[in-house]
Amino acid sequence: MPSISTKGQLMPESPIRKLVPFAEDAKKRGIDVIHLNIGQPDIKTPEIALDAVRNHKIEVLAYSRTEGSETYRSKLAAYYAKQGIKVEAQDIIVTTGGSEALSFTMGTIADPGDEIIIPEPFYANYNGFATAMGLRVVPVVSGIERNFALPPIEDFEIHIGPRTRAILICNPGNPTGYLYSKEEIEKLANLVRKHDLFLVADEVYREFTYDNREHFSILNEDGLENQGIVVDSVSKRYSMCGARVGCMISRNKEVIKTALKFAQARLSPPTLAQIASEAALDTPQEYFDAVIEEYVERRDILIEELEKIPDVVVAKPQGAFYCMAELPVEDADHFAQWLLEHFEDKGQTVMVAPAAGFYATPGLGKNQIRIAYVLEKDKLKRAVALLEKALIQYARL
Amino acid sequence: MPSISTKGQLMPESPIRKLVPFAEDAKKRGIDVIHLNIGQPDIKTPEIALDAVRNHKIEVLAYSRTEGSETYRSKLAAYYAKQGIKVEAQDIIVTTGGSEALSFTMGTIADPGDEIIIPEPFYANYNGFATAMGLRVVPVVSGIERNFALPPIEDFEIHIGPRTRAILICNPGNPTGYLYSKEEIEKLANLVRKHDLFLVADEVYREFTYDNREHFSILNEDGLENQGIVVDSVSKRYSMCGARVGCMISRNKEVIKTALKFAQARLSPPTLAQIASEAALDTPQEYFDAVIEEYVERRDILIEELEKIPDVVVAKPQGAFYCMAELPVEDADHFAQWLLEHFEDKGQTVMVAPAAGFYATPGLGKNQIRIAYVLEKDKLKRAVALLEKALIQYARL
Repeated sequence: MPSISTKGQLMPESPIRKLVPFAEDAKKRGIDVIHLNIGQPDIKTPEIALDAVRNHKIEVLAYSRTEGSETYRSKLAAYYAKQGIKVEAQDIIVTTGGSEALSFTMGTIADPGDEIIIPEPFYANYNGFATAMGLRVVPVVSGIERNFALPPIEDFEIHIGPRTRAILICNPGNPTGYLYSKEEIEKLANLVRKHDLFLVADEVYREFTYDNREHFSILNEDGLENQGIVVDSVSKRYSMCGARVGCMISRNKEVIKTALKFAQARLSPPTLAQIASEAALDTPQEYFDAVIEEYVERRDILIEELEKIPDVVVAKPQGAFYCMAELPVEDADHFAQWLLEHFEDKGQTVMVAPAAGFYATPGLGKNQIRIAYVLEKDKLKRAVALLEKALIQYARL
Repeated sequence: MPSISTKGQLMPESPIRKLVPFAEDAKKRGIDVIHLNIGQPDIKTPEIALDAVRNHKIEVLAYSRTEGSETYRSKLAAYYAKQGIKVEAQDIIVTTGGSEALSFTMGTIADPGDEIIIPEPFYANYNGFATAMGLRVVPVVSGIERNFALPPIEDFEIHIGPRTRAILICNPGNPTGYLYSKEEIEKLANLVRKHDLFLVADEVYREFTYDNREHFSILNEDGLENQGIVVDSVSKRYSMCGARVGCMISRNKEVIKTALKFAQARLSPPTLAQIASEAALDTPQEYFDAVIEEYVERRDILIEELEKIPDVVVAKPQGAFYCMAELPVEDADHFAQWLLEHFEDKGQTVMVAPAAGFYATPGLGKNQIRIAYVLEKDKLKRAVALLEKALIQYARL
């Protein structure tokens, strides 16, 4: 039997995936598992997007253009203009989810053996794409005690070497919920200018910012035209995770031209989902206002309830819909599995994402979990109550 | 300005793409360009698939499972059973087009620097995916004079070395239209068994076989359970190129488990398109019968007309909807561009795909073109008439 590639063996497994069989077993035993572990919002997709698909007039479901349909890219450029971001349609490649934008970006800017610096904890799949491309992720620790703010620039600088190609951030952050300030973005911009690196920003949570704080895109930073690359997606913005439509944006023409070669190999992004995504751009502002209000309420309840539990440390998120919490346990992986295997209260338990998978440095985040507040408030409250009861029982083991 | 990756610089551009600006210019001059260059069929998508999308009941357009929805995978397994191919749902990963299945397969079985042997001419994007993954494509020439039949096994064997990981075939072939016989598949199976390699078969044109010839899948070959990997797609079968739904099939559990890790990084295949693809599985047999009849008529007309042109050599395709032709020109690239820039007859010209891009060996296929017979018969006839006139004019230059 021929052997699997070394790369395939090195590919990380999703930190949540390991728990899935335990959740399935619990459900088979009749347990109601409340999911705090997933980034799949329960928010309804805008009707305007769903209707566009219902009313399609397609006779031949044909390829779109490799870089995405012309009308969609033009409207996207107009959307960014409304956000104060000046880009043209030609600076945009429509991708199959933000995932593909990340993959094209990494392939365009780095070769096997090259390094990308990422503040940790970070979205676990960055590691997956980097491994698939043979790149090395170099983590810079951001601590829960500072709410996961940007680490000091010196911490980045000591890791910059001849193989460093880029700094990658997620803003607002998954899993941290941290929203980088304009000053923090400027510091990063100065750093990449000084060392001639790319700055890649995953801004898929752009519109999820709270407490009247504004998102500052790296594309708004002057003098970063040739070094800034943004990864975006409709998944979270319009609760359209299943569309698999995202985009890659850069004003660097060489970057776009090269990424387009990767895009050509896979022919085109999905046509039906582009129809939905184009229509979604006309979603009225009230939709977003209501969504933001809902998330703020959920976040506030979540934080309030979590802070009541003794020895739980919570970071206060200002964006996205995740919250990192430090628990009074030694190994959150073990605790998460125990929750599914051995805990229940009135027929219910809770599933959380152990945070170690969001760190590249071994041993970090072992007592942390990520909570996605994508559930209704009552369910969220009940989930935290379950967590509290579970922690008491778990401490007695 | 930071530099582009070496890999990005090496990524091949689509052989057709270079001609696109010339086609657009011609259209701007009012010329009607008949496209013989693309694999986008004009055949209508089955109503049953389009209706499923029209009638969707989605409220939240959510991620599907990473490996594809359970119901779709089960129905796919039943479809393969009907084709005489015994696979279970667990042997299938639903992918974003056959493209992604190729990419997952290459990542799973080969590391940068490893080699994959492919009979040439071959689908140009194999080269794109291989370059993106850092793999080396080792071509084995199949000649137009033998209708692009499988090259002698010795020609493969002399290229097998310590870095060889797999043999990749496309059956029926794009761009050749050649349908491998059971005997040819068995020869390849023996070869990969002898040398402990993977045999990867792109079978996206499986149902497009003519003259009562039957497709023999590598999955039907006994004793290849651990070495066979099939790439498939709904794109051509149901004229749903824009869906971007395909799959990767293998009975080797280690292969599926590893490919799933690559799949996890990109979360899930597109949800709307899976709905269409699942419904498409119920397309009545009459649809396919009519399509096959149409393609056979088109092929016959195309071959008949092409063979009337002096010094044109045509391979007779028994499958897919492509035909390779050798023209009395030195450089088909130049001729194809000239067709768009300088030729017209009654306001019309024709766009063809120069075949050099389908060969990995420099200099091969320079006088060949690929013709996709995805147009109505009258248009096809007119296109060949244009080609004949153009060749006469071009010879006088």
